Amino acid sequence: MSVTTPAGFRAAGTTAGLKPSGRPDVALVVNDGPDRHAAAVFTTNRVEAAPVTWSRQVVSDGRADVVVLNSGCANACTGPEGFEDTHRTAEHVAEVLGVSSGDVVVCSTGMIGERLPMERLLAGTDAAASALAADGGAAAAESIMTTDTHPKEAVRHGEGWSVGGMAKGAGMLAPALATMLVVLTTDAVTTPADLDAALREACRLTFDRVDSDACMSTNDTVVLLASGASGVRASREDLTLLVHEVSADLARQLVGDAEGAQHDVEVEVVGAASEDDAVDVARTISRSALFKCAIFGGDPNWGRIVSAVGTTSAEFDPRALDVTINGVQVCRATGVGEDRSRVDLSGRHVHVVVDLHAGDASGTVWTNDLTHDYVHENSAYST
Amino acid sequence: MSVTTPAGFRAAGTTAGLKPSGRPDVALVVNDGPDRHAAAVFTTNRVEAAPVTWSRQVVSDGRADVVVLNSGCANACTGPEGFEDTHRTAEHVAEVLGVSSGDVVVCSTGMIGERLPMERLLAGTDAAASALAADGGAAAAESIMTTDTHPKEAVRHGEGWSVGGMAKGAGMLAPALATMLVVLTTDAVTTPADLDAALREACRLTFDRVDSDACMSTNDTVVLLASGASGVRASREDLTLLVHEVSADLARQLVGDAEGAQHDVEVEVVGAASEDDAVDVARTISRSALFKCAIFGGDPNWGRIVSAVGTTSAEFDPRALDVTINGVQVCRATGVGEDRSRVDLSGRHVHVVVDLHAGDASGTVWTNDLTHDYVHENSAYST
Repeated sequence: MSVTTPAGFRAAGTTAGLKPSGRPDVALVVNDGPDRHAAAVFTTNRVEAAPVTWSRQVVSDGRADVVVLNSGCANACTGPEGFEDTHRTAEHVAEVLGVSSGDVVVCSTGMIGERLPMERLLAGTDAAASALAADGGAAAAESIMTTDTHPKEAVRHGEGWSVGGMAKGAGMLAPALATMLVVLTTDAVTTPADLDAALREACRLTFDRVDSDACMSTNDTVVLLASGASGVRASREDLTLLVHEVSADLARQLVGDAEGAQHDVEVEVVGAASEDDAVDVARTISRSALFKCAIFGGDPNWGRIVSAVGTTSAEFDPRALDVTINGVQVCRATGVGEDRSRVDLSGRHVHVVVDLHAGDASGTVWTNDLTHDYVHENSAYST
Repeated sequence: MSVTTPAGFRAAGTTAGLKPSGRPDVALVVNDGPDRHAAAVFTTNRVEAAPVTWSRQVVSDGRADVVVLNSGCANACTGPEGFEDTHRTAEHVAEVLGVSSGDVVVCSTGMIGERLPMERLLAGTDAAASALAADGGAAAAESIMTTDTHPKEAVRHGEGWSVGGMAKGAGMLAPALATMLVVLTTDAVTTPADLDAALREACRLTFDRVDSDACMSTNDTVVLLASGASGVRASREDLTLLVHEVSADLARQLVGDAEGAQHDVEVEVVGAASEDDAVDVARTISRSALFKCAIFGGDPNWGRIVSAVGTTSAEFDPRALDVTINGVQVCRATGVGEDRSRVDLSGRHVHVVVDLHAGDASGTVWTNDLTHDYVHENSAYST
């Protein structure tokens, strides 16, 4: 169900023929109200795709009625013509569904530098509009997949209301492995301001802390729609909590399905002087190709971790670093600690803890190992 | 000859048994004067190895008589005991050669977090001291190799004087793939100030612009020794020119022998508002795992280039980017340009030119593709 679990939403997914694989590639999510509040967060990449430019404007007034998504083509680096294609898509969907085109969010993912096959896309949106259903969430989630091996959905329930979501793309908001598209829905009664605050806080702590390969997409979009259909008012605090939980769930699913990855790596930095320091150090470790290769090789190579820490400007004493990998403190005071052969890296989950001994703040970034399959998928697949 | 091509230098390389492979692992380079000027540049990693801490102090007075180098062990993250090992190495070499230990530069490369086998190392330095020869440059160059597939040497001649050099490690000063160690020598008559200026300018434009995998070593060291033995005075300008040429030659050799690489990629950014902008954009492209995988796959995927450009803070209009790959302008005004199928990526050398259309400055960074062999070497080999 996911995006259609909260009341007031319908969704659909269809095959428009945008992808060579012939798999589903167009999705619609419709908010039937009574509220049509919307908030969104977009890629910070300055080279942004046409649908990002369009959708940024759509949600600027805090309202959106429909989200139309396609896989198979990113509509990025396509110039004024590409923007016109996005505009035309929104106009078409608006007409079919009887809403204003200015309330239609558009999301695209796929190859950069290619124009959308508009006739097929518009026919696909017609088919999707005909298929809209109150249980259409699963079909929508399947239609936005690219290199994902399975759809990603999550739901959390409050007292009489809920939050649902779907995601694609094994990455993060900034940066991203592949384009990340996320649609979140809730039937809580809320305000545009609370919705925006809840989404930003959730993104900051979840999608922004996933770093598969340090690459940022031109198309990343996370949009949150509120229908108010439950009739139950949610406090900003409760709303933030549930949106955070659904986002964290989806973010974990993204890491778990990252292209070619064999390990999910939780890099936790503790004892930091500030949260910013902790996240900076965790992100730097997460981006070390040498560290990521070592994890793939089952090698608890803490030297590659401390040498990554040393490149940051975080506050710490270079002689006082501790590193624990899966419970074994392999590095103590920047020197040899417990026997590294005791570290078991055979499981999917790897937990690295770095103690900076510089304060009480902490932060975690999730990443993946760097594998033969990553290289294979990204040298063979043009996205 | 390389480091022994300039007059006034002797060198040697021997096998001390520090490496499981049983290949040569200890080298000496001795400056017999009459001058003993020295300049050096070290890693900016805050977690620096003991030999870096030691050698930084040695060259602070502008003088060094000897450089002793070992492969097989980095002596990094080894605490006060590791520093004592470096100190003892310098004392031992100083005594054998009749110089002051405060004039002995020490360089180490290999595994982090392991102590040096001191008895073997010191015996190796004795053997190297006995083997010192005016044609020992090649033996020294071979002894500092780790994952290098061949020694790296370069020589350039001025009017009656010369500059020679050797290098190991497929990387750069900051950051680095593996530890980079470089010893440069000249028999020009110069001053410590000119020597320092020449080295810093050369490093800035060569070793600092190689970025194989964005990882910075704890041990990177570039040292330049001047003997004055030619009796010919070199201007700062001429000295800088030749040191730059030798450094550029060695830097290219490092890229050409990077771990697992199949392509050498020259990322040139033109039309930048400043040289800093140009280098920032070139470095960001050089660090994109997706771009590097595409090159490995023979895919002129310009979308991955412009999306990397978009993550920088350089000055440019996101709608005005041009990208040329091996002479084919595949992206024009951030849109589709010439037919990408015309790009030939079958050769070793790949030349990417990005025009920011924001000014007259330019800059180039050299990198490599991301290959199966890179993942294999760095998941199987613990360094």
